[in-house]
Amino acid sequence: MLHRKVAVLGSTGSVGRQSIDALSETGAEFVLFTGGRNISLLAEQARKCKPRAVAIPDESSALELKALLADTDTVVYGGKDSICKCIEECGADVIVHSISGLAGIPSAIAASKTGARLAIANKESIISLGDVIFDNIRSSGGELIPVDSEHSAIFQCLVTSGAVDAKGKRRPEIVNRILLTASGGPFFGMKREDLENVTPEMALAHPTWKMGRKITIDCATLMNKGFEVIEAVRLFGVDLDRVEVVVHRQSIVHSMVEYIDTMVIAQLGTPDMRHCVRYALSYPDRMRVDETGLDFYSLNSLTFDRPDTEAFPLLDAARRAYRLGTTAPAALIAADEEAVLAFVSGKIGFCDMSDVVCETLEKFNPHSTCTEETVFDAERTARSIADSLISKY
Amino acid sequence: MLHRKVAVLGSTGSVGRQSIDALSETGAEFVLFTGGRNISLLAEQARKCKPRAVAIPDESSALELKALLADTDTVVYGGKDSICKCIEECGADVIVHSISGLAGIPSAIAASKTGARLAIANKESIISLGDVIFDNIRSSGGELIPVDSEHSAIFQCLVTSGAVDAKGKRRPEIVNRILLTASGGPFFGMKREDLENVTPEMALAHPTWKMGRKITIDCATLMNKGFEVIEAVRLFGVDLDRVEVVVHRQSIVHSMVEYIDTMVIAQLGTPDMRHCVRYALSYPDRMRVDETGLDFYSLNSLTFDRPDTEAFPLLDAARRAYRLGTTAPAALIAADEEAVLAFVSGKIGFCDMSDVVCETLEKFNPHSTCTEETVFDAERTARSIADSLISKY
Repeated sequence: MLHRKVAVLGSTGSVGRQSIDALSETGAEFVLFTGGRNISLLAEQARKCKPRAVAIPDESSALELKALLADTDTVVYGGKDSICKCIEECGADVIVHSISGLAGIPSAIAASKTGARLAIANKESIISLGDVIFDNIRSSGGELIPVDSEHSAIFQCLVTSGAVDAKGKRRPEIVNRILLTASGGPFFGMKREDLENVTPEMALAHPTWKMGRKITIDCATLMNKGFEVIEAVRLFGVDLDRVEVVVHRQSIVHSMVEYIDTMVIAQLGTPDMRHCVRYALSYPDRMRVDETGLDFYSLNSLTFDRPDTEAFPLLDAARRAYRLGTTAPAALIAADEEAVLAFVSGKIGFCDMSDVVCETLEKFNPHSTCTEETVFDAERTARSIADSLISKY
Repeated sequence: MLHRKVAVLGSTGSVGRQSIDALSETGAEFVLFTGGRNISLLAEQARKCKPRAVAIPDESSALELKALLADTDTVVYGGKDSICKCIEECGADVIVHSISGLAGIPSAIAASKTGARLAIANKESIISLGDVIFDNIRSSGGELIPVDSEHSAIFQCLVTSGAVDAKGKRRPEIVNRILLTASGGPFFGMKREDLENVTPEMALAHPTWKMGRKITIDCATLMNKGFEVIEAVRLFGVDLDRVEVVVHRQSIVHSMVEYIDTMVIAQLGTPDMRHCVRYALSYPDRMRVDETGLDFYSLNSLTFDRPDTEAFPLLDAARRAYRLGTTAPAALIAADEEAVLAFVSGKIGFCDMSDVVCETLEKFNPHSTCTEETVFDAERTARSIADSLISKY
């Protein structure tokens, strides 16, 4: 178990860096890193971890990286298709997918076809094309384990009763409810009129998790939790109505499952993505770490609250998008990407984000089928609807 | 799964009654009930549930019961050995063992040899002769599932990572700590000087669980939690030092397991023994119940505190007894049974109970081996030491 060939897709992002950190201790052999524009960090990671190959989509950045790694054994590949090609050929036992956004879809699809274990942190591919990915996993004999802390938690809770496994088995019939915990974000308790005054700087300060900018804003609007609701439905095969969001300010309980016998299994721990990466690698076993666990005596008391869906309408928008079906969830994601960008660059206010996303969803017509092509078409359409709404502010 | 032949040992006790209640809904076929002196309740249960046989140790009570059930198909057996004999011959798939105290040992041993699933609520047999019982389970091809709420919880948490199964498999090497929760009893927060004034009436009012008198007193002194520590060590094969008691006043988290990767799996639920009985019957599956689960929004916040081992010295006495080895835990149980009896009948005070138990343990010499015979010898010796200590008050 401990000497696995590992590919890390999106190695320079927040989850990618933490994954490399966690995996380095395990004696994993790195076969592939992929990145985007952060060439210097990618070069640094390659020098340290000695992956056999590194792939980036931009050709000229690839030439730059090649020069930086000229004296090493790492082969650099560049070009739009290089990432998927490298995934197919890298021979990884485990592929950690931490490319963020809809941009991670092609690589997630490619990874799901290899027969490897896919440790997936990219929500967008699961939300948009979860069924396709699961079909690929099953037909390739691969495995899929979520790395997102909440979904890793739910996975661990469901394994208890054989309600899920990495091969794509699901037994939603023994699950009453998935209780998806949410920190509530930095603005928990605020009403819409207070939220109007939230600046990007305020929104970028997340109480517990250290993350990238996009997801930090999504946490503040609860859009991220909405995405996670759809992700849970796709991953675990439960009905939408059985996924309940519970605000848990302390971020100690990472999620819970209530079974049909009303018993609840919960997963708790210090908030650290590396735990989830390690679990995805060691499942069904556990990997020893030389860290102290939770100190229950110095914990504040644990609280559970109902989310305020009026002040944070994107939580329900996600449910509406799921019910619209096919490509609507992908449109939701694209609209949100545009809205967050517009908010961070000062074009629109905090509450305008949910207005833009909800209006885009209203104007969007879902496709009749859900394939990689229709998803990308939905993405383009939704971005253009959102952009035209944003331009009016 | 739902049409199993079930024997309920100790059917008239608190756990026995709740078991019958829980099992009646499942379509279980009752093959054997056993009881003690509560003939009228036993007759009532037999009329309602129509077990094939009922066994009680006292011959004259058996005659009385026989008369009460003369017009039914239930066969009544009486006599000291009738219970074990009936266990051997009843052909049960599941034996729910809810006889309380050391008196439950012979029937637990008999049940462990049948190859049936033993759903065991009797702590004393596990504490005194856990290894013998597990050897029997393994060699008969039977199964053992704890019914005690904390141990059921731990079992459910350990199943998550294949760290335990009903056949006697144990993988303590992947467990960092078992976090055994304790309500703290009605006197949590009180110091020894306050405890001196506690009367039996005060001690018999348990905050959460409805239980028999003996165990209610044991909850108030934390002796019960001490027993549960030893029980956890025996059931799950972990080292004594890895079982930590955490006071959790709300009795919502029924226990937790911390793995070597520092992740914690917890089991939560409404405090109701029937859940544990159902789980023991349905494992590895879950049984649907038509009840609402935990309402997280109306829960008080969950708190975790360190137990006060100075005010409640019996928690550490259990650890000492375990370390003394062989028959010392049985001696501890016997001394406690005498001390509780003396307290309830007004002979000694609340704090005198721990003095009697601790002194008995000091004076007691553990046997060189641990067998059914040496355990009963230890019981007699410890009772006599305790009684002579009690007589001096």
